[in-house]
Amino acid sequence: MTIYKAPLDDMRFALYDVLGAEAVLARLEGGEGHTRDLLDAVLDEAARFNEQVLAPLNGPGDEEGCHFDKATRTVTTPKGFKEAYRQYAEGGWAGLTAHEKYGGQALPAVLGTLTKEMIDSANLAWGIYPLLSHGATSALEHHGDEWQQEVFLKPLVEGRWTGTMCLTEPQAGSDLGLLKTRAEPNADGSYRVTGTKIFISAGEHDFAENIVHLVLARLPGAPEGSRGISMLVVPKFKVNRDGSMGERNAVAAGAIEHKMGIKGSATCVMNFDEAEGWLVGPAHKGLVAMFTMMNAARLAVGIQGLGLAERALQNSLNYARERLQMRALSGPKLPEKPADPLTVHPDVRRMLLTQRAFVEAGRVLATYAALQSDIEARDTDPLARKTAGELLSFLIPIAKGLLTEAAQECTKEALQIFGGHGYIAEHGMEQFVRDARIITLYEGTTQIQALDLLGRKIMQLQGAGLKHFLGEISAFCQANQANESVKAFVGPLAVATKAWGDLTQAIAQNAQANPEELGAAAVDYLYFSGYVTLAYFWAKSVLAAAGSALSADAKQAKRDTATFYFSRILPRIHVHKAAIEAGVATLPEVL
Amino acid sequence: MTIYKAPLDDMRFALYDVLGAEAVLARLEGGEGHTRDLLDAVLDEAARFNEQVLAPLNGPGDEEGCHFDKATRTVTTPKGFKEAYRQYAEGGWAGLTAHEKYGGQALPAVLGTLTKEMIDSANLAWGIYPLLSHGATSALEHHGDEWQQEVFLKPLVEGRWTGTMCLTEPQAGSDLGLLKTRAEPNADGSYRVTGTKIFISAGEHDFAENIVHLVLARLPGAPEGSRGISMLVVPKFKVNRDGSMGERNAVAAGAIEHKMGIKGSATCVMNFDEAEGWLVGPAHKGLVAMFTMMNAARLAVGIQGLGLAERALQNSLNYARERLQMRALSGPKLPEKPADPLTVHPDVRRMLLTQRAFVEAGRVLATYAALQSDIEARDTDPLARKTAGELLSFLIPIAKGLLTEAAQECTKEALQIFGGHGYIAEHGMEQFVRDARIITLYEGTTQIQALDLLGRKIMQLQGAGLKHFLGEISAFCQANQANESVKAFVGPLAVATKAWGDLTQAIAQNAQANPEELGAAAVDYLYFSGYVTLAYFWAKSVLAAAGSALSADAKQAKRDTATFYFSRILPRIHVHKAAIEAGVATLPEVL
Repeated sequence: MTIYKAPLDDMRFALYDVLGAEAVLARLEGGEGHTRDLLDAVLDEAARFNEQVLAPLNGPGDEEGCHFDKATRTVTTPKGFKEAYRQYAEGGWAGLTAHEKYGGQALPAVLGTLTKEMIDSANLAWGIYPLLSHGATSALEHHGDEWQQEVFLKPLVEGRWTGTMCLTEPQAGSDLGLLKTRAEPNADGSYRVTGTKIFISAGEHDFAENIVHLVLARLPGAPEGSRGISMLVVPKFKVNRDGSMGERNAVAAGAIEHKMGIKGSATCVMNFDEAEGWLVGPAHKGLVAMFTMMNAARLAVGIQGLGLAERALQNSLNYARERLQMRALSGPKLPEKPADPLTVHPDVRRMLLTQRAFVEAGRVLATYAALQSDIEARDTDPLARKTAGELLSFLIPIAKGLLTEAAQECTKEALQIFGGHGYIAEHGMEQFVRDARIITLYEGTTQIQALDLLGRKIMQLQGAGLKHFLGEISAFCQANQANESVKAFVGPLAVATKAWGDLTQAIAQNAQANPEELGAAAVDYLYFSGYVTLAYFWAKSVLAAAGSALSADAKQAKRDTATFYFSRILPRIHVHKAAIEAGVATLPEVL
Repeated sequence: MTIYKAPLDDMRFALYDVLGAEAVLARLEGGEGHTRDLLDAVLDEAARFNEQVLAPLNGPGDEEGCHFDKATRTVTTPKGFKEAYRQYAEGGWAGLTAHEKYGGQALPAVLGTLTKEMIDSANLAWGIYPLLSHGATSALEHHGDEWQQEVFLKPLVEGRWTGTMCLTEPQAGSDLGLLKTRAEPNADGSYRVTGTKIFISAGEHDFAENIVHLVLARLPGAPEGSRGISMLVVPKFKVNRDGSMGERNAVAAGAIEHKMGIKGSATCVMNFDEAEGWLVGPAHKGLVAMFTMMNAARLAVGIQGLGLAERALQNSLNYARERLQMRALSGPKLPEKPADPLTVHPDVRRMLLTQRAFVEAGRVLATYAALQSDIEARDTDPLARKTAGELLSFLIPIAKGLLTEAAQECTKEALQIFGGHGYIAEHGMEQFVRDARIITLYEGTTQIQALDLLGRKIMQLQGAGLKHFLGEISAFCQANQANESVKAFVGPLAVATKAWGDLTQAIAQNAQANPEELGAAAVDYLYFSGYVTLAYFWAKSVLAAAGSALSADAKQAKRDTATFYFSRILPRIHVHKAAIEAGVATLPEVL
């Protein structure tokens, strides 16, 4: 019942007009072929696949859900999911950004980001399977032994096998230091892995011949807490050194969870019973290795928020234009009809513009972050690589935290526009709300993102990323303060940016006196940072629009949405500032 | 899996300490017997019924849902629902506040409100059935002919029959003026009612012998739009003038909706096919009559928000105390345990205090509104009745709008505290989020409440209710500005209250130039009004606590939560003020 059309025009606007990605990509190592023609062709093809194959499976997949067979401990995914995955693998999408050595296409991360947004719009639950494979691929690329890379990466990149990340245990959620799964060495260098993991997305399913589990566990004599965790690769079917598949390994799904949403995604309890595994990277350094893939996964979850919000926007805008209900307060707009369309009501427009403001600037943020990862990986200038890496690692908790929280607001408003009809399953809007609710939880809750941003990226790393980003915004403001097309936004942006810097200093000082102030400030600081970040990308978008080939209407829409954002969303920073200043003293122990 | 314990102490605190209800009720007509002992006994008994009978059915009812049999067009409610309703009716709860003439107990509305909060906490979906009966009872009490009252009210009050409100049609949701159901006169004074109604809660079920539908329809020659709507009573089984039941009437359920939540509540498509009905009140004045019951129903839906938030708070607080995850930033608090409880994390406390701040002040707001309805109905002084009526009608859109929106935030935060476990059905937290999502939609969306508040209660009625309320707050501030126990809150409250008045003036002026400014301001004005209203009730609560028999800890908790509210929630009014001032110019037609 819901529509979806890939927002190709706005994706190209973000990529080329706002971020000038064409020139950036061309100067990177291996970027000769990454022309606009190629990128556009891939985006067009991704749009076709997502609109035609994945989007129609979204509602039915939610309704049917996954089936778990206790006897065989196997999962059957909803009708059509497996076939869609076959097409995905055959289309080469699994290896879009992977290394050519393993059969990948080595295309830029920005392209991975934009095509991923389409998947998340089209079918969030389905997209979780390839997302996990991508994480496993990335971990093995960075930390695997040569033989592990030889054996596991090619089938992962081809999409013949899929991957998982096995972190959580019943007693160890946000706090991985509490995990108990054990790995004991065998004489041949392998390990026997024993323990129970929960919330394992794609832990078992019917897409692939084999499933490659990356598992966090403790070796004998490992230090307690997070410093004693190792990463192991544990395939569902054992794999010989020549890559051929051996017998079934002692790892199996024990159950699947009944969840609020993403019902097409199999969330498994995984039981490891002396399963054969191999150490990935050094002993006791598993958490560091896992963070490599977790950072990428966190950005990916932020993009899930973007994708959900985009589709919610499309459907609510469509409905608001068609549904006739009541008259405009200033008199009938369509007197020949029984009532005016919902769009005549200013508050309906507020709800639509809220979504648009988050989606379009969020898209620039996600694409900007992905471009930093391209620069970090392939710039010839080491300093440019370092700067991009610092920017990226700073922006990831902001992108994850803000875009997933914004998706809660956007899908809520989209449903609200439908009135009572939004609550009925057949309209599909309530699925977006249910699906969206997971994204502020997994890959680190909003609270964990906030502590990562403030505790690690700001305090521990002396705010390197923040300094780059504030510098970039300040330079933008200085360069454009007299520019007619954007100066109305430059003033408030400069004020908000200065406030961001000042607030950071103030929190750092407070935290010296009492470290609890960090925890009291973190989530509000995340929001503050996110809102200023989107303000920057809105100002940048207005400037880019002015100099672009967009139609006059499209340019005006960018200006209008930026005006909306600056006057009705950005003022939220004052509430967050007030909360931060109120400090931990206003968060007493609850009785 | 979820817990529920009726918050009797806080209910009594709101009722007696904050609002002094004992003295108020005693001076009302018929209030001689409404002693504290009686009220307490009823609350205790309600707590027992809700904790033991309704609360355990909440999760299972959601899982099972309602069943519709196409062949017989009947609905079977989830296991246990029918038996619980029998106990409810036998316990006299259906007639708690109804007139004694019809077998009711004529107990005060404040008691109805507090017992209703318990029902909404215990089992929101179940509570919708009696809620609709209550609405139908109220409409017939106010607008029915004598014979209609004789025939219909006694079985409704006894709980043998139930009622519905049949308003919505596919093309007529918020805009009832578009409805098409027809009622044509028969020779005997009855009418033949024909049409399709949707979203009819309790339209068909297995609780009762008969169902009394109150239906909006058009008589022949009726004016178009909302001025041509009449109300008719259409029973499922025809009823003779002597009250005996006749044959099956031509009204039946055509389907039930598959919804996001409240799955134990049967939401029916109702088909009327020349069904026999009787006009209630004057022809063409049905909307006025319906608004009598709608106002009560709107307050009731606000209380649903309160009930949901209360139960979400209880469960998330319980989890936060028990779940051990990570250490406090200032060092381990329980070094002997593997980790500290979640409550050591300041942001977890922020999420808990957000819920508590809304719930406890929201309870005072709901009880205050109910007390106005007691005064309006039974005060011996006509001026007191008039003032209370104006206050009530002004506060209803605020209570409905703010408490239902706050319930979205509270249930979201409660789920967030559970992390990934909150997303799993068995923990029950996601049901609260799904159930809560309906309440900003039915009985008038938040947008409709906002237009009712600003367009009708402020502009059309010259803000009579607002003037009383601002006067009351100002008097409170003046009387307590030097009072040690509360003066820290009186200053900010006085400032916010003045801003509320000024903002109202400014909007009224803007609207004269452009009526669309009303629509652009309405929802933000609703929030602004709601936040100041709760600030008043927090200040009042702190004062009341100081002079109460509460323990020192409980007094401190009231102060702490008020401090939290004033420093971290109330500042949101500035964002809403900024949005209102930005005006309709920042809400251009979306392209």
